[in-house]
Amino acid sequence: MSSESTPQTITCKAAVAWKAGEPLKIEDIQVAPPKAGEVRIKIVSTSVCHTDSFTLSGMDAEGVFPCILGHEGAGIVESVGEGVTSVAPGDHVIPLYTPECRECKFCKSGKTNLCQKIRATQGKGLMPDGTSRFSMNGQPIFHYMGTSTFSQYTVVAEISVAKIAPEAPLDKVCLLGCGIPTGFGAAINTANVQPGDTVAIFGCGAIGLSVIQGAKYANAGKIIAIDINPSKFVLAKEFGATDFINPLDYPDRPIQEVIVDLYDGGVDHSFECSGGNTKIMRAALESCHKGWGQSIIISVANAGEEISTRPFQLVTGRVWKGTAFGGVKGRTEIPNYVKMYMDGSLKIDEYITHNLKLEDINEGFHLQHIGECIRPSIPLFD
Amino acid sequence: MSSESTPQTITCKAAVAWKAGEPLKIEDIQVAPPKAGEVRIKIVSTSVCHTDSFTLSGMDAEGVFPCILGHEGAGIVESVGEGVTSVAPGDHVIPLYTPECRECKFCKSGKTNLCQKIRATQGKGLMPDGTSRFSMNGQPIFHYMGTSTFSQYTVVAEISVAKIAPEAPLDKVCLLGCGIPTGFGAAINTANVQPGDTVAIFGCGAIGLSVIQGAKYANAGKIIAIDINPSKFVLAKEFGATDFINPLDYPDRPIQEVIVDLYDGGVDHSFECSGGNTKIMRAALESCHKGWGQSIIISVANAGEEISTRPFQLVTGRVWKGTAFGGVKGRTEIPNYVKMYMDGSLKIDEYITHNLKLEDINEGFHLQHIGECIRPSIPLFD
Repeated sequence: MSSESTPQTITCKAAVAWKAGEPLKIEDIQVAPPKAGEVRIKIVSTSVCHTDSFTLSGMDAEGVFPCILGHEGAGIVESVGEGVTSVAPGDHVIPLYTPECRECKFCKSGKTNLCQKIRATQGKGLMPDGTSRFSMNGQPIFHYMGTSTFSQYTVVAEISVAKIAPEAPLDKVCLLGCGIPTGFGAAINTANVQPGDTVAIFGCGAIGLSVIQGAKYANAGKIIAIDINPSKFVLAKEFGATDFINPLDYPDRPIQEVIVDLYDGGVDHSFECSGGNTKIMRAALESCHKGWGQSIIISVANAGEEISTRPFQLVTGRVWKGTAFGGVKGRTEIPNYVKMYMDGSLKIDEYITHNLKLEDINEGFHLQHIGECIRPSIPLFD
Repeated sequence: MSSESTPQTITCKAAVAWKAGEPLKIEDIQVAPPKAGEVRIKIVSTSVCHTDSFTLSGMDAEGVFPCILGHEGAGIVESVGEGVTSVAPGDHVIPLYTPECRECKFCKSGKTNLCQKIRATQGKGLMPDGTSRFSMNGQPIFHYMGTSTFSQYTVVAEISVAKIAPEAPLDKVCLLGCGIPTGFGAAINTANVQPGDTVAIFGCGAIGLSVIQGAKYANAGKIIAIDINPSKFVLAKEFGATDFINPLDYPDRPIQEVIVDLYDGGVDHSFECSGGNTKIMRAALESCHKGWGQSIIISVANAGEEISTRPFQLVTGRVWKGTAFGGVKGRTEIPNYVKMYMDGSLKIDEYITHNLKLEDINEGFHLQHIGECIRPSIPLFD
């Protein structure tokens, strides 16, 4: 199909989340053509992230059903709507749940990656014009995070598309849609880890491993991997961790106390990648060195849960921060992550512990839940 | 007395805190000569800060009695102990509750003013050798914050002494011992306010007014003074505030919601100068702009009290920090604060709402408590 022809509705396969708490179901759905400023993408490969499970569980206040989940994917532009200039059919792309419009107050601030241009509609599972491109037999199906990569075809805003090198293997770089830049960017952009710094990572899933990669890339000194599942330390070591702590080995002491003792007053940077446990967020903060240590919250906590600490922790110089998508401006930076992978300076293959078929996607959720899978790679086409 | 003669014990007047919750009592006490690395100072003037009241109330976990409170003072070196080289008898000085040794890990880090060289003993009300220089009829009296300025003579560590210009009026610059650098430094050092930034100050006592001064000095755009006592807005305006909010005018809405609405998504920097209310600390954080707003906690909360918020506040880009003594390295920076006062670029006189005699010091505590006094100036000698 050339960019001049008029795109038609496509019927294709997608994993539909009909209801919170229920398994996804593979369905034949309809994907309408892209409207102005939109891009329709043939998704070649997707992975699964904990945030997909979180929303499916029903605990995400923004979760709306039925919807098509998925926000770690890669594909090829199939058609573009009116006025789209930055990508064309045939381009290899990664959909971005954090867009980059380059013209809103946030994009222009130079201080954040949190483009707000389409935030309101994205949060409601809709395209910027307030409607959906997905349906099944006439029943609308909601979008998710502006990406919906669990479908053979998806429609996203032009500002939510990163154009990448065509030679990159899409079944690998699909992981650059979320977890890897989130962790790597948290170390590089949000924390700005410096050579020789001591860094602690709470939780060694995909995000934690990516923080470890980022810390190693920044030439951190000690890189402390913390997890209650010591089997995770194998990959953590491969990714660059130098020290390993299992909190279960210290049943009688808060882990922050252990870390402050073991590391000369605490760490320069700590990262909470636990999947949203607010107690671990506190432990991460309180593991920081007095005077300058900073802690970065990466996970999304359950609705209504709160973090807390004694204000003295901050008054004596610790800093509490968070990050979303690792502070990465997707259209600008994701192409560079792809290049880093291609030249061997960024690991991706090692995260892919399972290759699954689309019809087995629920198994991917389950394997991640029980901690057996870092990331699955799921082709959308046979 | 020349620096060559051997200093003797001095008997002088001091306001002694015999017991938590009881008024101070003016007594004739004995002040032993300075030991090695110590300096004995004739305190010419002192003021009173809320932290003195806080400790006197008994809520300060580090409070020990009997002690001599006071940490905003100025005076003249009377004698020095062995090895003291940075000051000599006759030098005009301000005692520092945050020392600056220039050789500990903290001082050398370049990241914090929290010198830890004598932290352990200072926190116990003792000099670095673990003993006290104060006594009354043989009964030891504890030091306080390494300064104890409610005495005609005090002994402090050499690293706790800032040497200042001799022409500065000590009854004014005594305020540079705590409140003014704490607030001014919070704006300049900790927050690094930039020209045009929007700044919110929660609480317009001496600290809040000093944040306002600092924000104005940094050419902030909007400087929002927030207080439930609107009489404080008079001085706030004189110090540079441009906007004034009384939370009592919005009985039905959280003040953070009001500020986010009024100021286009929130402020670039907020400062909690409320005197330790943890709910206000939260409101200050949540008044910050998504993506980059940062909130600085300045007050000391009551023992055991905790701050809390939803982690989403941080994940979406707000930063929670604190500051102690405004990040000011006292020996290096306080002489410059004195110079700024002398050349007219720093206000001090306007804080001094009352001139009291030492025997009326309890009245100073009372007037501050009821919000009628910003700072008293109290001469130690008639």
